[in-house]
Amino acid sequence: MNGKNSFERLERLPAKLLHGGDYNPEQWLDRPDILKQDIDYMKAAHINVVTLGVFSWSVYEPEEGEYYFEWLDAIMDRLYENGIYVILATPSGARPAWLDEKYPEVMRVNEYGLRNTHGIRHNHCMSSPIYRRKVTEMNEKLALRYGRHPALILWHVSNELGGSCYCELCRERFRQFLEERYHTVERLNQEWWTTFWSHRFGNFTQIDPPSPRGESSIHGLNLDWKRFTTWNMTDYMKSEIEVLRRITPDIPVTTNFMRLYKGLDYHRMAPELDIVSWDSYPAWGKQGETLWDTFAQTAFEHSVMRSMKPDRPYLLMESTPSIVNWHQTNKLKRPGIHRLSSLQAIACGADSVLYFQWRKARGSFEQHHGAVIDHLGTNDTRVYREVSQLGEELMKLDQLCGSTAHNDVAVLYDWENRWAIEDMAGLSDRKRYDETVQEIYRVLLRHGIDSDLVSEETEFGRYKVVIAPMLYLLKPQTASFMKKFTEAGGVLLATYMSGYVNENTLCYLGGFPGDGLREVFGLYSEEIDSLYADETNGAVFKDGGDNACEIRDFCEIVKVQDAEIMAVYTQDFYAGEPVLTRKVWGEGQAWYLAARMDEAGMSSVLRRVCEAGGLEWERLPTGLEVHYRYKEGVRYTIALNTAREKIIYKKRLIEALDAVVWEEEISDADVKGNR
Amino acid sequence: MNGKNSFERLERLPAKLLHGGDYNPEQWLDRPDILKQDIDYMKAAHINVVTLGVFSWSVYEPEEGEYYFEWLDAIMDRLYENGIYVILATPSGARPAWLDEKYPEVMRVNEYGLRNTHGIRHNHCMSSPIYRRKVTEMNEKLALRYGRHPALILWHVSNELGGSCYCELCRERFRQFLEERYHTVERLNQEWWTTFWSHRFGNFTQIDPPSPRGESSIHGLNLDWKRFTTWNMTDYMKSEIEVLRRITPDIPVTTNFMRLYKGLDYHRMAPELDIVSWDSYPAWGKQGETLWDTFAQTAFEHSVMRSMKPDRPYLLMESTPSIVNWHQTNKLKRPGIHRLSSLQAIACGADSVLYFQWRKARGSFEQHHGAVIDHLGTNDTRVYREVSQLGEELMKLDQLCGSTAHNDVAVLYDWENRWAIEDMAGLSDRKRYDETVQEIYRVLLRHGIDSDLVSEETEFGRYKVVIAPMLYLLKPQTASFMKKFTEAGGVLLATYMSGYVNENTLCYLGGFPGDGLREVFGLYSEEIDSLYADETNGAVFKDGGDNACEIRDFCEIVKVQDAEIMAVYTQDFYAGEPVLTRKVWGEGQAWYLAARMDEAGMSSVLRRVCEAGGLEWERLPTGLEVHYRYKEGVRYTIALNTAREKIIYKKRLIEALDAVVWEEEISDADVKGNR
Amino acid sequence: MNGKNSFERLERLPAKLLHGGDYNPEQWLDRPDILKQDIDYMKAAHINVVTLGVFSWSVYEPEEGEYYFEWLDAIMDRLYENGIYVILATPSGARPAWLDEKYPEVMRVNEYGLRNTHGIRHNHCMSSPIYRRKVTEMNEKLALRYGRHPALILWHVSNELGGSCYCELCRERFRQFLEERYHTVERLNQEWWTTFWSHRFGNFTQIDPPSPRGESSIHGLNLDWKRFTTWNMTDYMKSEIEVLRRITPDIPVTTNFMRLYKGLDYHRMAPELDIVSWDSYPAWGKQGETLWDTFAQTAFEHSVMRSMKPDRPYLLMESTPSIVNWHQTNKLKRPGIHRLSSLQAIACGADSVLYFQWRKARGSFEQHHGAVIDHLGTNDTRVYREVSQLGEELMKLDQLCGSTAHNDVAVLYDWENRWAIEDMAGLSDRKRYDETVQEIYRVLLRHGIDSDLVSEETEFGRYKVVIAPMLYLLKPQTASFMKKFTEAGGVLLATYMSGYVNENTLCYLGGFPGDGLREVFGLYSEEIDSLYADETNGAVFKDGGDNACEIRDFCEIVKVQDAEIMAVYTQDFYAGEPVLTRKVWGEGQAWYLAARMDEAGMSSVLRRVCEAGGLEWERLPTGLEVHYRYKEGVRYTIALNTAREKIIYKKRLIEALDAVVWEEEISDADVKGNR
Repeated sequence: MNGKNSFERLERLPAKLLHGGDYNPEQWLDRPDILKQDIDYMKAAHINVVTLGVFSWSVYEPEEGEYYFEWLDAIMDRLYENGIYVILATPSGARPAWLDEKYPEVMRVNEYGLRNTHGIRHNHCMSSPIYRRKVTEMNEKLALRYGRHPALILWHVSNELGGSCYCELCRERFRQFLEERYHTVERLNQEWWTTFWSHRFGNFTQIDPPSPRGESSIHGLNLDWKRFTTWNMTDYMKSEIEVLRRITPDIPVTTNFMRLYKGLDYHRMAPELDIVSWDSYPAWGKQGETLWDTFAQTAFEHSVMRSMKPDRPYLLMESTPSIVNWHQTNKLKRPGIHRLSSLQAIACGADSVLYFQWRKARGSFEQHHGAVIDHLGTNDTRVYREVSQLGEELMKLDQLCGSTAHNDVAVLYDWENRWAIEDMAGLSDRKRYDETVQEIYRVLLRHGIDSDLVSEETEFGRYKVVIAPMLYLLKPQTASFMKKFTEAGGVLLATYMSGYVNENTLCYLGGFPGDGLREVFGLYSEEIDSLYADETNGAVFKDGGDNACEIRDFCEIVKVQDAEIMAVYTQDFYAGEPVLTRKVWGEGQAWYLAARMDEAGMSSVLRRVCEAGGLEWERLPTGLEVHYRYKEGVRYTIALNTAREKIIYKKRLIEALDAVVWEEEISDADVKGNR
Repeated sequence: MNGKNSFERLERLPAKLLHGGDYNPEQWLDRPDILKQDIDYMKAAHINVVTLGVFSWSVYEPEEGEYYFEWLDAIMDRLYENGIYVILATPSGARPAWLDEKYPEVMRVNEYGLRNTHGIRHNHCMSSPIYRRKVTEMNEKLALRYGRHPALILWHVSNELGGSCYCELCRERFRQFLEERYHTVERLNQEWWTTFWSHRFGNFTQIDPPSPRGESSIHGLNLDWKRFTTWNMTDYMKSEIEVLRRITPDIPVTTNFMRLYKGLDYHRMAPELDIVSWDSYPAWGKQGETLWDTFAQTAFEHSVMRSMKPDRPYLLMESTPSIVNWHQTNKLKRPGIHRLSSLQAIACGADSVLYFQWRKARGSFEQHHGAVIDHLGTNDTRVYREVSQLGEELMKLDQLCGSTAHNDVAVLYDWENRWAIEDMAGLSDRKRYDETVQEIYRVLLRHGIDSDLVSEETEFGRYKVVIAPMLYLLKPQTASFMKKFTEAGGVLLATYMSGYVNENTLCYLGGFPGDGLREVFGLYSEEIDSLYADETNGAVFKDGGDNACEIRDFCEIVKVQDAEIMAVYTQDFYAGEPVLTRKVWGEGQAWYLAARMDEAGMSSVLRRVCEAGGLEWERLPTGLEVHYRYKEGVRYTIALNTAREKIIYKKRLIEALDAVVWEEEISDADVKGNR
Repeated sequence: MNGKNSFERLERLPAKLLHGGDYNPEQWLDRPDILKQDIDYMKAAHINVVTLGVFSWSVYEPEEGEYYFEWLDAIMDRLYENGIYVILATPSGARPAWLDEKYPEVMRVNEYGLRNTHGIRHNHCMSSPIYRRKVTEMNEKLALRYGRHPALILWHVSNELGGSCYCELCRERFRQFLEERYHTVERLNQEWWTTFWSHRFGNFTQIDPPSPRGESSIHGLNLDWKRFTTWNMTDYMKSEIEVLRRITPDIPVTTNFMRLYKGLDYHRMAPELDIVSWDSYPAWGKQGETLWDTFAQTAFEHSVMRSMKPDRPYLLMESTPSIVNWHQTNKLKRPGIHRLSSLQAIACGADSVLYFQWRKARGSFEQHHGAVIDHLGTNDTRVYREVSQLGEELMKLDQLCGSTAHNDVAVLYDWENRWAIEDMAGLSDRKRYDETVQEIYRVLLRHGIDSDLVSEETEFGRYKVVIAPMLYLLKPQTASFMKKFTEAGGVLLATYMSGYVNENTLCYLGGFPGDGLREVFGLYSEEIDSLYADETNGAVFKDGGDNACEIRDFCEIVKVQDAEIMAVYTQDFYAGEPVLTRKVWGEGQAWYLAARMDEAGMSSVLRRVCEAGGLEWERLPTGLEVHYRYKEGVRYTIALNTAREKIIYKKRLIEALDAVVWEEEISDADVKGNR
């Protein structure tokens, strides 16, 4: 039915960096002067694309079955005439009041079993046949009316999908989901270990989602409910995409992800999309962080998005040209920050800089969210000028369009593992999985190594080094991927709290890390000590050198059976016991880190591991961040200086808060990540 | 129908300062010895009034339709025989159990849509026709039975009215309220900017109050719900007053306000009352505050109450002779504090010192709330002695009765603006409107200037200086009042975050402050920077002198078009940009302060503004607080020394924790505030 | 019907210290290799008892009426063959899913009036006739099948009973409970002081439990609801016990208490049991505490349990050999701590060291809770070795079995007083009743004096000194017990906040402490000052010497009528007023402490009081804890060294973290507590 494949559909995107953002002309239909001014100001700011229709349902269809699209026809024609493309959203992100009034079942039921009332957004039941039917009708109208419009380059399905629903329909679908997963209730009882606390189920109909009014203590149930919610949301999203693909098989599709949103496993949703896009709202200039810290955290998030489809670019779908309205403190972006942060997106692999939003709304919840055009209504503002200058600069970087990253290092960052660790009852309340992964990413970045953030379902063949921090939930194939990778010469690093439970949170028997990894690393964990907040231990590296590091939070006491001890604890009753080990496995090496080290310690460990993988390890000048993109034999280096002083790097001068881009021809062998 | 006007009704009050408080003899009807002792002890303590019947419904009417008032007849007769007047409450502040049992609809529904069950107090639906009918029946009985009783001087309607109800009746009335306000749903959609997030309503029936289970993101809806709640509570209160006025047209009416309670706009309720009264429970001796701080905060609250009816006194309806039972720490009033705080009420314009309560209850929630008579049951206590001595002293101050304040400075403090700022989504979570207004009041007070706290609906003709801090929500007529006031020679000071939205929270277009104020001040705000908690900026005043000040939280970057720059920022990328400006407008001056300054900075600014208004600016000795009352050509000065050392002021010696009152004859021209 | 009395039933327990714990073989029925290994490892670790069946209902009865006990038959036989006894639980601690599905009324209704859904545990309605019937059926089956099994030594009723239910059945029973307590609603109105806030009830049917949606301000109601919950839970527990006693009159019964759990008055439940048992999970090594602190807190809890039945031992039913999974930080027990803490239980009077649990579950909520056997599955672990060594050591201490403590000092620690103080509205939010009692226990322990923690209903004849801290709620007979005790030569110490309210929270009239205690102490409290968190006062002792102490939180100002002033305040307006007094009463003395002193002050006071009682007062070496057990003319001294250095005590050397036990023959007159 779909004549084109995903890569072909992406050809619909113009071969240039996109600059633009959300545009809501339906709020200003009574002000033609403003609509006219919008076009003029957009062109002057080098805007080449806008996103339309994100929340337009109540204007498209103010009463059931009565449609008004003429206003949009005019807007899209006018935009196209002025050289501005359109990303068109399906309007399912919020429902018109008549729909909730007539069909209350489309509203969600919360975890207490109470149905929401009308309002806010993100509030539809993903299972509701009525809602799916109404959305299908709407999407058909949009696809038929605008599918061939020359301005249209991309579908934007709904908006920031999220949340969950506990209505009867969803409960029933959950039970079906479980039955398909486990086949028999006996198997479910075994995998959820329900004999504990007399929780055995006699049949699937007895099972309800976790609830503060009912069950919350079965980890398998908790995890499967999250899996189901992702599955159901993806199923709903596919029902939207199906209509669009059917009518407009050549238009690519995306939906906008929300950073590291915990509620949905984006790794399960991304395969359904032609291109990944996301909304980025860091707190630039946040108190207690250096600018580099904020940039590094944002680079991490860019990497998560990029790594979902590593062979193509992604889009920055939303960002703010000034402030948002929902941080606790919404500090103005300082002069130059908007440019630098936008170029960081390009550096990390995005092919766009898009804003929420073009013009500030006069009222309602986001009236104080930053925009290119303020309530003031003129172009004589600092924000407009910075946007405009950036637009001009982006035009000069169009050659980066389509280029991609090729990194040597992968760091495992898995949604199901996040969920399992978060739900885990025990050890300490400072588990900090996200922070731990991010710390590793940052240490690498500070030493010039950008890395991919990948799920447990990734085969690691393209990488030289794989780092698997806190892989508490070890999925069935992951251990074998690891073995295969290491056997083939890869360098693997795992840490404390790895391989404790299987994919249904049953503890592995016979020693952690389970599923055969105990042999790979040549050790098992006998006990794990949790430290109080202010307690520390330390480490001595056997090969001498950089020994000053602090250990906090977690210390595994491991029994080494067949591995080289690289470092040992310095304190407490396990002083002298191993804290870092290495074992040769096949052509590669398997390293194990038994405790949570501070940044100095992680640098020491990661240096050893990366050097074992043949990588260069060099501390970048303070404040510098470097990324690479590759295309057709050319490597683009993008160097961002987040410091207040100039930096000399690779003989190039980079002024404070400046970014420099340069290109080099390279052979295929030099492409990082191509092995 | 009401033969008398409000001023005439006030003649019913005796021409002396009232001393007394809440008295609950119905709790002791089985103890005639205690009831007898009460009268003896009251007389000895110079009590001349008590408040009866505040929570007596279940004793008046223990079963529906069965009334018992004989006990009250006896009490009132006995009090009157002993020279003690009566303020009689209507008992609607709490309902008897039979009423809730028989008519559950009189109980409120909460914001989640669940009906409360019986209990506590303040729990009636203001819309319920049944509740209004039962209250009317009760009030008729009371008015007919006691309306001519010589002891009766004042009706006290219900008690500390507050809260809101979300039942179907209230929802329906809310929709009617909206229809009367906006006439068409299209107009409402425009003013609430519902096109945002697809929130357009097709008709009024689709609208529900804000709810955590439904809509909470439409600022216009949130604000109108608060307006409605005030309107509905006022309507209910008027239904109580109507009965009393009909039967006893010569008895004045009050209700007791709760300090700065956010749930009701007291400025809308006060016009229905003959005299304003309130309940004051400061934490005297609170850790981290000087005594002066606590006094100044209390003076602020007195001023809010006084300013609602500036041409007549108000009443202190409740205060405690020792402790309350609901502060986190209920420290004893130190010796002398009771006297000093009571005289402060008189100094600020009250004609009473009344207590909650005369005698401690043996049980239930307030059993540990302070009272004149303790569970101990004797008059041989420090508390009784201090009350008694104060009673004697108040008798000597009866000439102050009826005198009023006449202040030169008004500070805008508006409930709807409070609500709008509180609900505003953006900038920073340290908006602190109340604290900002209070800081201005305190700085003025510290320099000998008492000020009125007035709503945006006040015409400013009687003042020389008007200060309008953070006037985020600018009502339709306020800008014109300001212009008129300034044109006529007044001095106006506005600040950052002024004139951002109209009365329905729609942002003004064309530059803040909106509605024409941009011209009055000769500038507009291009951006506003929100600082993190520990960040600061600074200011330099162009006219030299007192330059040391810190700026926190908010810094507007203003574009001056036609104003004199009085001070500039010292730091950050907007160093050198204006932070204080002045523009001559008509006969007066319009000052604009773009950032939040600390006390030193506010002193510098207010000194300049007050001196521009022709006022004297003098720092009072530390710990001193001074107020004035005027009557018939006499000015009474009341000077309170909150310090631990004696103070010499105007050649008068004021001992530590002492208060001194003196009078001077003055000409009309000298009366402050009479212009 | 029950042929044996409670003491006789206890003979069923073997005459040795029990070592073992919870064992859940039903989780491993598909792993006979593991079940076999369990027995082997148990024997090697000197395990002599296991607790079976705590959560086995869904395995016993997977569908209604279909029972499977054969697996248990085999397990019990095998255990007995291997010399391991069985404590058999009734499985009512958690219900199978079919039961909730078929009879939803067995699930609790929460305080908001919403019925829970299936899940967790501790979730049955104690009133439900259906639940009681199903439990009775199950218990009958168990008692008939296993009542004569030679392995069975003790019934373990349900598990950690707790919580409350607000369903209609419970409401109705609550009303009956009230009617039996007060007989007439008029009496209830008086005792609850409902005339306050118009809360008078017309009949019992109008009364509902306290609720966040309804009434919460009547202290009498709040207290009676807690009383009812204890009564109803006890009634439920008795319904379980009744079956067991009927069928197996010679098997003793216990249930496992949860430390100082506030929800149930254990003093009301203990009389129904043959032996008290409890679950102890201290955070050994907690940050900010010395090891002695943690031991002393645990000794306090042991004492609470022991004091419920002072003439027989109790059982430590659960403890962990390593970590739990629910502390915020679950630090490993350091080497030696498991032995020392287990011996502390024996020292305090327990006849057992039992664990939760034998083997870690593979999944669900407690999968990371410590156990003797880890997921690793071997006996080659530190935990197993320490358990095993302890087992060996316990065998050598079997002569302590059956011995009991005989202390000279009783400290009042009463559940109803805890509830009343917690619910009290007033004074300060730092009431800290528990902390205050515990501080007294600790000061005594540090000076070599172990004490009993007893309820207000205890006659004090066996003690020399009785300390009654913060006896806010003074029950009817307690004052007379105190008088009698003091008259007979006892030394009594009471403190601030004593005798304020009667058993229904009505304040005593005529001066605190009420009910005649004013005469015993020769004073009354006129006022009580609450200090802010950082404020202090001080004291000077009139007899000189140890005067440095700080006073915090509460300072009563007392009027002494007939008592000797032993110490006075040093600061504030009540400097010089009495803070400690003594009055001779009969043959004894009545001391009164008017303020909250720090540890130094409490040491000064308690020294004087204990010496007045003829006790020896000697500060033990830092870190030492000493307990005594007595049996048949022998006194066993158990000295625990919690310090990191060795200690010489009574000429005996005690190594760091070591415990020493020795015995001496004594005459009856030397037995402490025997008077």
